[in-house]
Amino acid sequence: MTQQARAVETRAAIIRAAADVFGAVGYGGASMADICVAAGLTKGALYFHFASKEALALAVIDAQHERALGLGDELLHSEQPGLHVLLRMAFELGKQVRDDPVSRAGIRLTMESSNLSVPVVTPYEDWIAACELLLRRAILDGDVRADVDVAAAARFISPAFTGVQVVSGVLTGRADLMQRLVEMWSFVLPSLVVPERWDVLRTLPAEMADVWG
Amino acid sequence: MTQQARAVETRAAIIRAAADVFGAVGYGGASMADICVAAGLTKGALYFHFASKEALALAVIDAQHERALGLGDELLHSEQPGLHVLLRMAFELGKQVRDDPVSRAGIRLTMESSNLSVPVVTPYEDWIAACELLLRRAILDGDVRADVDVAAAARFISPAFTGVQVVSGVLTGRADLMQRLVEMWSFVLPSLVVPERWDVLRTLPAEMADVWG
Repeated sequence: MTQQARAVETRAAIIRAAADVFGAVGYGGASMADICVAAGLTKGALYFHFASKEALALAVIDAQHERALGLGDELLHSEQPGLHVLLRMAFELGKQVRDDPVSRAGIRLTMESSNLSVPVVTPYEDWIAACELLLRRAILDGDVRADVDVAAAARFISPAFTGVQVVSGVLTGRADLMQRLVEMWSFVLPSLVVPERWDVLRTLPAEMADVWG
Repeated sequence: MTQQARAVETRAAIIRAAADVFGAVGYGGASMADICVAAGLTKGALYFHFASKEALALAVIDAQHERALGLGDELLHSEQPGLHVLLRMAFELGKQVRDDPVSRAGIRLTMESSNLSVPVVTPYEDWIAACELLLRRAILDGDVRADVDVAAAARFISPAFTGVQVVSGVLTGRADLMQRLVEMWSFVLPSLVVPERWDVLRTLPAEMADVWG
């Protein structure tokens, strides 16, 4: 293995260790010393890769956002109808946050990012934009009504997802997240769906949860 | 003024000062030393009232929750129809969080409460319960359909509100919160409202924002 490859691997291992610590005790509770122990590195080795706890927190947030964007990118290029992709994105993102420690820590740090010197706004803006794109596609597909204000819908759906996953995290450690997402979509879809498509699409949230949850 | 009255007043002043500090820099960024300076007290005087930063954060969260519950209690006992009260609660709570420093800091600390040794779950549970109660009343009023799963609706509406106010806080410092709440309700109401009542109730979110926003 080249020295550069080793450095990349060490960096990834530090991010995983930092995610475990941030995920367990939050930004305020975590210390560089704890992260050293979790990563099995000396303080010198850790500081060689990350200059501060804040730099490390931003790296975890970036890693989570990258994984989520990877998923988003794959889904945006899928051939499925826009509305299917939009729901699938919510369920797959939910699963990612529920099951992947780096994603879970990244979301927690994003929520706590008021602790950082730079507020983290990009993830929120990216998801609202993706949501709007998929709603526009769903109108062309004939699933969503042409008179829906897609910008307003995206500005609501994306934060609603945020709130649902946060509250599910606080109350049940995200154990009930899939059920809550089914409920979320069952209350949002009637405002979006073309009446003639309702009978086909009303069961979409439950189907998506079965396949992707 | 009696000594007890002075102690109560000092405690309230400390909570306001702590709210300013927590609100500005978050739990992780705040120190007891900063809060001493903001409150104009010696460290000894501060520690006489609050044993730790965590105790102070929990007191700010309690103060916010008390203000919100005071509003909730007043609204639950109002003579207005259930659906009106439910929307009014969202707009008035939003205004409280937007405009009152203690409420704003309390919400921020609740979101960051993963930093504390005890997770803060009561506010989430209280709002879901209040929401469910008002939806049941709205069914009796003839505004909400009897076949709506009110428990599921409350489990969605309350977290959706949380997400909307968090994202509005991150992206615009809550400057667009009222507009976002109007949008939220415009996408949720169609799932709830009795069809014959739709023409009367469809403008309710905008009307509520005009009066209470």
